[in-house]
Amino acid sequence: MPNKLKTLKTLLGEVADLRQILAVLEWDQNVNMPPGGSEARGQQLASLGRIAHEKATSKKLGKLLDELKSEFTDPDTDEGALVRVTARDYEKAARVPPKFVAKQAIITTKAFEAWVEAKGKSDFSIFRPHLEKVVKLAQEYISFFPPADHPYDTLLNDYEPGMKTADVQAIFDALRPKQVELIKTIKSAKQVKDDFLYKKYSEEKVWKFGETVITQFGYDWSRGRQDKAPHPFQTTFSVNDTRITNRFEENNPFATLFSAMHEAGHAMYEQGSNPAYERTPLAGGTSLAVHESQSRLWENLVGRSLPFWEHFFPLLKKTFPSKLDGVKLKQFYKAINKVEPTLIRVNADEATYNMHVMLRLELEIGMVEGKFAVKDLPEIWNAKMEEYLGIVPPDDAKGVLQDVHWSSGLMGYFSTYALGNMISAQLWEKINEDITDLDEQIRSGKFDALLGWLREKIHIYGRKYDPQDMVQRVTGSRINPDAYVRYLTKKYNAIYEL
Amino acid sequence: MPNKLKTLKTLLGEVADLRQILAVLEWDQNVNMPPGGSEARGQQLASLGRIAHEKATSKKLGKLLDELKSEFTDPDTDEGALVRVTARDYEKAARVPPKFVAKQAIITTKAFEAWVEAKGKSDFSIFRPHLEKVVKLAQEYISFFPPADHPYDTLLNDYEPGMKTADVQAIFDALRPKQVELIKTIKSAKQVKDDFLYKKYSEEKVWKFGETVITQFGYDWSRGRQDKAPHPFQTTFSVNDTRITNRFEENNPFATLFSAMHEAGHAMYEQGSNPAYERTPLAGGTSLAVHESQSRLWENLVGRSLPFWEHFFPLLKKTFPSKLDGVKLKQFYKAINKVEPTLIRVNADEATYNMHVMLRLELEIGMVEGKFAVKDLPEIWNAKMEEYLGIVPPDDAKGVLQDVHWSSGLMGYFSTYALGNMISAQLWEKINEDITDLDEQIRSGKFDALLGWLREKIHIYGRKYDPQDMVQRVTGSRINPDAYVRYLTKKYNAIYEL
Repeated sequence: MPNKLKTLKTLLGEVADLRQILAVLEWDQNVNMPPGGSEARGQQLASLGRIAHEKATSKKLGKLLDELKSEFTDPDTDEGALVRVTARDYEKAARVPPKFVAKQAIITTKAFEAWVEAKGKSDFSIFRPHLEKVVKLAQEYISFFPPADHPYDTLLNDYEPGMKTADVQAIFDALRPKQVELIKTIKSAKQVKDDFLYKKYSEEKVWKFGETVITQFGYDWSRGRQDKAPHPFQTTFSVNDTRITNRFEENNPFATLFSAMHEAGHAMYEQGSNPAYERTPLAGGTSLAVHESQSRLWENLVGRSLPFWEHFFPLLKKTFPSKLDGVKLKQFYKAINKVEPTLIRVNADEATYNMHVMLRLELEIGMVEGKFAVKDLPEIWNAKMEEYLGIVPPDDAKGVLQDVHWSSGLMGYFSTYALGNMISAQLWEKINEDITDLDEQIRSGKFDALLGWLREKIHIYGRKYDPQDMVQRVTGSRINPDAYVRYLTKKYNAIYEL
Repeated sequence: MPNKLKTLKTLLGEVADLRQILAVLEWDQNVNMPPGGSEARGQQLASLGRIAHEKATSKKLGKLLDELKSEFTDPDTDEGALVRVTARDYEKAARVPPKFVAKQAIITTKAFEAWVEAKGKSDFSIFRPHLEKVVKLAQEYISFFPPADHPYDTLLNDYEPGMKTADVQAIFDALRPKQVELIKTIKSAKQVKDDFLYKKYSEEKVWKFGETVITQFGYDWSRGRQDKAPHPFQTTFSVNDTRITNRFEENNPFATLFSAMHEAGHAMYEQGSNPAYERTPLAGGTSLAVHESQSRLWENLVGRSLPFWEHFFPLLKKTFPSKLDGVKLKQFYKAINKVEPTLIRVNADEATYNMHVMLRLELEIGMVEGKFAVKDLPEIWNAKMEEYLGIVPPDDAKGVLQDVHWSSGLMGYFSTYALGNMISAQLWEKINEDITDLDEQIRSGKFDALLGWLREKIHIYGRKYDPQDMVQRVTGSRINPDAYVRYLTKKYNAIYEL
């Protein structure tokens, strides 16, 4: 390896180590930390975040990248991709002052704790001053960058390199009327019965069933684990240590099962990243939307499909004989795909899910623009919920406080959830071309060809290709809603006999 | 606060944060990490360890300490103690090259994993090459320091500031014959029946009973937690996040209970440290021996006393009615204090425990001197076990592989376990002078006066006073075996009717 490239990898390796350690601290904060630990954890995150940022933006690294940029120009080589992606990360990070990073860590640590309390008590006023600070942080962050077409572009770009607010709005504008129409049609069709899903299921058995399913998917437990946390998430400490969290809600036991598949989808993407990319910026997933395409593919395209339940329903009935007594496969399949506007995004059905995302995108853009004041957020949230989904949250815990993201300073993020859905359907059409007996395989509980395809076409490349390029390479088209609309229409036509 | 002192605290705060983060990584490695995570964790520990070391030995910090040393000379003030302790830590750390620290992290991470495997398979050959590297590390470490009276002094000094190998040997030489004589006398007395301790107890109930006990002791769960790990230990991420681990051994269920008390004793010491010392080197316990005096005090002086069981035995009988059917309080008390040479140090009774420590001290000194080769260690271990305790381990898992310490690079450490026993007895005599109805309080399940005394006399001072000075201040004498011998003799005279 040329000497300069070796130096680059040494510098990047150290930064990668520190970032992985930050992830360990955050995971522990969510999964284990006793309440007393909060203040010190904030200081630890601030100190380490500052050091990681200093190292990631050092003059030495910048100079080295400048030199390497002219040497490694072919983006199709790993070296070219490494230099390109690293230089882009560097140029972005170098614009953000270390003091800002430290301040951000302290504010978001406190905001997270406040959110947990506020959600527990369903009291937005506890979270409000913290969210105001988070919005100011986002605006200050934007101010470090050259003016974009829209201020929100700067935030979006951190999660979806190469995409603009206007691109997303165009995709959403094309999707929205079709999705609204579908919801309307379904509303007037004969409704699906799903009361048997909301009985009192044993937490332990549901948890174990989820583990059985994701084990069969191919989630590698020797390189991961599943723990309880207030919110399901996936985190990566290395290609060989990618963990997931989950929760159990008494009143929605099956959410635990689908969350397990969802987070395992994320984790398997990370577990499939090229080991040669470890400790460099090429490791991991290329964007949040592509990441979400993996989680939603396993959760929905696989986990809510008829072939999947043709395989797993007998085991499910054996696990819960009294709860599912007399319930037939088709009934169950329809029930888990029931379309009904609901309050909580993560548990929303596929037909209404994207409406939640569109709502949040508008709110975020409004907050960032300063058009919406944080104090008015619960009211705006509730009004938009009524407009888009025809329902109003009874309290803030089930409304504006439901998502963890803002408390962690994550803004610019939400649209990727809907983009992920679209990509998952684009991939699914392509996979079915390549694996012609996919349904039959799933019906037999076999997922290795599917996981193998995803590994070979997507996972192995890590961050080598930007999301739009990746989707183009694999499916022949850029991100668009057509496949998703086809998928939804076909699926719900059958379920609701439209 | 004068400006220089403020700068000092900022620099020290960052180092403290990084060291606490290292502790989080190590805790996670023991408690949660999937096997695949090992290699990356080693790199993370190495990178962060190197940075922490660089920061702790920066020229800026050295210069500042030099200036402050002449300004703050009174060791009885917090500022004077801070400068004194920090300067000593600094001078020691500055002798150790960053490359050595990084190498040490990588070697010990691998050694720990190898030890887990070797112990599981009871195969010393798996651990041997790693231990050889650990011994070389210890020798290399010693070489960074000026020659001491004995090379082992340098290692000991990291755990017991101010004590020399010769001091410890003198204390042990005074103790050994008395302890040997006691063991001999007990051996020829009427033996105690304890078969009811080794029935099949429910793991969950034993674990919960331990939690009940340490809650009553005063362990603050809002600032801690207890998890499973291969080896019980206590770790500190801040004064408000001090965690303990424990394990359950089918064939020795009560060990879990006494380990809980032991580790809670450590944790309560850390929880009682002056909050004003947070993020400075004054936070935490002053030495391992004083630390061990706290854990052993709660485990033995309290937890294996008759008054303690006068309070807790009814609850224990209620928890395990069938196991303890017909067992009387006195019988139970005698059983948990049964003297019998055993293979495992952590579960050893109070009369034989120190013999295990003396064995390890001799082995460590031998390895450091190069007198003992690592490959011969199992044989030497077994020979010494036979000499000191009259028993030979059937395999290496129960012999030379039983302790985690060497795998983590901890050498110079073991004698502090025996010194801790001695200090605990010295403190106990003093506490009984100050709290005249202590037995009565314990009999009523009240521990607040006891914990309050320990907090006020010891915990609150953190590392302000060195161990010998601390013991002298509190008890009027330096560390010596007299109180411990008095305690053991009185206790066992009663139990064995000698």
